[in-house]
Amino acid sequence: MSLNKGKPCRRVAELSLESIVGLMPWTYDYDLAVIGGGSGGLAAAKEAAQLGLKVVLFDYVKPTAKGTTWGLGGTCVNVGCIPKKIMHYAGLLGKSIKDARYLGWNLPEYTQFDWNLLVEKVQNYIKMLNFSYKVSLRSAKVCYINALAYITTNNEIEYFLNEKSYKIHSRAIIIAVGSRPFVPRDVPGAFELTITSDDIFSLEKSPGKTLIVGGSYIALECASFLNDLNFDVTVSVRSVVLRGFDRQCSNKVMNNLEELGVKFKFKNLPSKIEKCEREDKLLVTYTNGERDLFDTVLYAVGRVAETKNLGLENVGIIVGLDGKIPVNERDETSATNVYAVGDVAQGRLELTPTAIQAGEYLARRLAAVSSKIVNYNNVPTTVFASYEYSSVGYSQEKAKEYFGKENIEVYLREFSSLELSAAHRLKNERLWADEFDKEASPQCLSKLICLKSEDEKVVGFHFIGPNAGEICQGFALAIKLGAKKSDFDELIGIHPTDAESFCTLSVTLASGQDFRVSAGCGGGKCG
Amino acid sequence: MSLNKGKPCRRVAELSLESIVGLMPWTYDYDLAVIGGGSGGLAAAKEAAQLGLKVVLFDYVKPTAKGTTWGLGGTCVNVGCIPKKIMHYAGLLGKSIKDARYLGWNLPEYTQFDWNLLVEKVQNYIKMLNFSYKVSLRSAKVCYINALAYITTNNEIEYFLNEKSYKIHSRAIIIAVGSRPFVPRDVPGAFELTITSDDIFSLEKSPGKTLIVGGSYIALECASFLNDLNFDVTVSVRSVVLRGFDRQCSNKVMNNLEELGVKFKFKNLPSKIEKCEREDKLLVTYTNGERDLFDTVLYAVGRVAETKNLGLENVGIIVGLDGKIPVNERDETSATNVYAVGDVAQGRLELTPTAIQAGEYLARRLAAVSSKIVNYNNVPTTVFASYEYSSVGYSQEKAKEYFGKENIEVYLREFSSLELSAAHRLKNERLWADEFDKEASPQCLSKLICLKSEDEKVVGFHFIGPNAGEICQGFALAIKLGAKKSDFDELIGIHPTDAESFCTLSVTLASGQDFRVSAGCGGGKCG
Repeated sequence: MSLNKGKPCRRVAELSLESIVGLMPWTYDYDLAVIGGGSGGLAAAKEAAQLGLKVVLFDYVKPTAKGTTWGLGGTCVNVGCIPKKIMHYAGLLGKSIKDARYLGWNLPEYTQFDWNLLVEKVQNYIKMLNFSYKVSLRSAKVCYINALAYITTNNEIEYFLNEKSYKIHSRAIIIAVGSRPFVPRDVPGAFELTITSDDIFSLEKSPGKTLIVGGSYIALECASFLNDLNFDVTVSVRSVVLRGFDRQCSNKVMNNLEELGVKFKFKNLPSKIEKCEREDKLLVTYTNGERDLFDTVLYAVGRVAETKNLGLENVGIIVGLDGKIPVNERDETSATNVYAVGDVAQGRLELTPTAIQAGEYLARRLAAVSSKIVNYNNVPTTVFASYEYSSVGYSQEKAKEYFGKENIEVYLREFSSLELSAAHRLKNERLWADEFDKEASPQCLSKLICLKSEDEKVVGFHFIGPNAGEICQGFALAIKLGAKKSDFDELIGIHPTDAESFCTLSVTLASGQDFRVSAGCGGGKCG
Repeated sequence: MSLNKGKPCRRVAELSLESIVGLMPWTYDYDLAVIGGGSGGLAAAKEAAQLGLKVVLFDYVKPTAKGTTWGLGGTCVNVGCIPKKIMHYAGLLGKSIKDARYLGWNLPEYTQFDWNLLVEKVQNYIKMLNFSYKVSLRSAKVCYINALAYITTNNEIEYFLNEKSYKIHSRAIIIAVGSRPFVPRDVPGAFELTITSDDIFSLEKSPGKTLIVGGSYIALECASFLNDLNFDVTVSVRSVVLRGFDRQCSNKVMNNLEELGVKFKFKNLPSKIEKCEREDKLLVTYTNGERDLFDTVLYAVGRVAETKNLGLENVGIIVGLDGKIPVNERDETSATNVYAVGDVAQGRLELTPTAIQAGEYLARRLAAVSSKIVNYNNVPTTVFASYEYSSVGYSQEKAKEYFGKENIEVYLREFSSLELSAAHRLKNERLWADEFDKEASPQCLSKLICLKSEDEKVVGFHFIGPNAGEICQGFALAIKLGAKKSDFDELIGIHPTDAESFCTLSVTLASGQDFRVSAGCGGGKCG
């Protein structure tokens, strides 16, 4: 069902903003034109329309090198958060099956996995969401145009549909085209033979033995679910995993993945990728000369904004090397009437919820109902690795840098989740069969970074373990409100949970004491 | 391994408190005697010992009517939180198996469950914890005596070991004997033929078709895991489920359970229970005359404190009908030197973490290192039903009562968890096969209760859904810190999670608008 029947909306906006911003020199077709139908763009468009503005939204997806393309909703819905979280869940279910067998469910020792069935379910779910976004645009009375928008002046956009050119005029333009994965052109074969996160969620052929290039959160998330889904996974990292995150936590995430079977290669990136026709595999040559065969190579080394064909030069916007558009705190670009939100805006966090809030707040400012701007401090985020890692505030390294080493107190505890201990989780047997001790290490790490000078105000919250994303959300609010270590100590725990560990952290890193609890009742204390 | 070799500790305490509380008129064997080795007692004993006091701890478990008994650690470890949470997890795994099958894991359509294997794993885990608590008492230099303590004076305790009588003298006595399930004596057969939560976790015979009597959180938790483990479960409730909790949320918890297959009977309690030898079943006659056969009947209608044989009359303590001991905010009973913490103390929340904090704080006050008392406001708690329910602060009903109906604004949203939508969870097919729509209703409910008069300060937080216990912990801290609705609105979500729903609640109950989101990306907004 096409809501616009492949043609531009016929509705032409009247001059509706007079009362707010004074008389216009000219009648526009729209109050607002949004370029990009992802999280930021949709949020801005719907909010503006609900506030009475006449809005048009352009969405166009340039196919990947593999030819992958998708519907309305942007990265998050189609090739990001949503399919990632479903595949993450499917991966976790592999471990659930083992736990279930241990705790009494009559299941086979080894379970086969059907990649195509998962892709089918994921894609069905996404199509349902694509459809619901179209419906929601229609309900909000936003005109949706499935075409590439080209900015010709500060108030004019040109686009092509069925080889015909159209133009619309809008008082304001928001650029929200997001970003796309970067694949280096200087590694022979990389661009032609590899895939990215834009392809993996709709990959028709089972990925098989996979090399993931990059240490980003996207790299580790893809490595996690593929490994959990029984695939052989190697991650090739230039220097460190999760650059910018807390170092101890990042290493713990990696160690957890290693125990689960993911192999890491450091300082040894692919220098050449060739198709090995006879075996239908990819032959990867590393910088140190080593070679290995893979079924799939996935690049996750960073993302760039696709701003080349937007006509930014027509309004004097100069983008960075990563294609991103400089903006001020009010999301204004250097061009009058032109704004940018989401991943395409330089220096912004590449996260769906920040893009949504930015889009909504900007729409409210454009409609002159609010002057509020987004506060980018204390934004919580989660790496959906096999054992998730969630954090808000400062890493230990950044806290030291900003506040001075002497001013920092770090409280922490490593422990096993009650349920996983009771289910007797083991290290990956494929890799650890020879070892005497196959029992998995404690998966969880709870860590608070406090400022001595401010009565141990908590400036960094970090948790690794199951459901880290769920656990962190509420604590992020407490940290925004200035929670101190003593507030955490007085908080009564919810027993038995992993989250309650934060109520009873007593060992400091500086003390040199052992912060690992080897066995017990999870995050809490039973007695 | 017995740490005390069945004999009382030979160590006799010296007068160690002189420096703190002045010269003693008499030399005691101990500074502190703790009666009860559960959460509160263990916490008090260990904390006191670590602060330098000489401590003895008595623990004795009176067998149930069925003869069930257990080791050190009290209700939480042996017949409460810990086995409950493991069985809850085992139950959830039944649904995980269905999700896994839908998302690509090659599993059979129906999976048998082995009750005895689960009980074995649960009991092994508990024995490991019992042992670790013995070790922790020894490390803390607490003398542990596995005997029933009898208070003879405000400073003297008598006990029997191997039919010999012993006496110890202690400066202070803490009673922390906890509580035990109540079974009515006036229902013929109930006491002799039924079980309670004290028996279920070690039940050697598979429970089979089970009747649970009671609407308490313990009743619903047992109903949840038994139903999830494929047993046929009926719950017989006098009036309402989860008395004292938010009504809308309690009903939602019940509706979720009904969709999963649990049957509820209201205002129709057993009036007689008989053994039906031929079929090895229990014949239950209800107050309305109906009759039904069950394999197991479990009572969960409340708990009473077992204070009858403690010698409380010797020190003038008068207990309530429920056996509970009146205490003031400093945990002092009416008897000098005698304190009570945990479930046995009248008016206290029956929760492990509050008992632990009470025990620790009391120990610190007795050691004169702190004067702090427990703050029982805003204690978060979770009902580990199949879809968990966690809350902190006021229910809607209590908020109305305390603050006035006109002063309350309720924000809420019902939605499905992303993963569970993607896994296409259905209603229990056994019960709903005839219905046209087998798709499960949205499982999650996020609800905030705000005070209009205080700039929408949040005084009640409620969440129903997967991992509610984990989600609520951090929000409980934020609510202690006085979070307002606008703080929730400014908080950036972690996407995709269920917890992020609290960042974007916009529908009020008063508006009459639909607060149910039928399909989408879980708790958040993708675009």
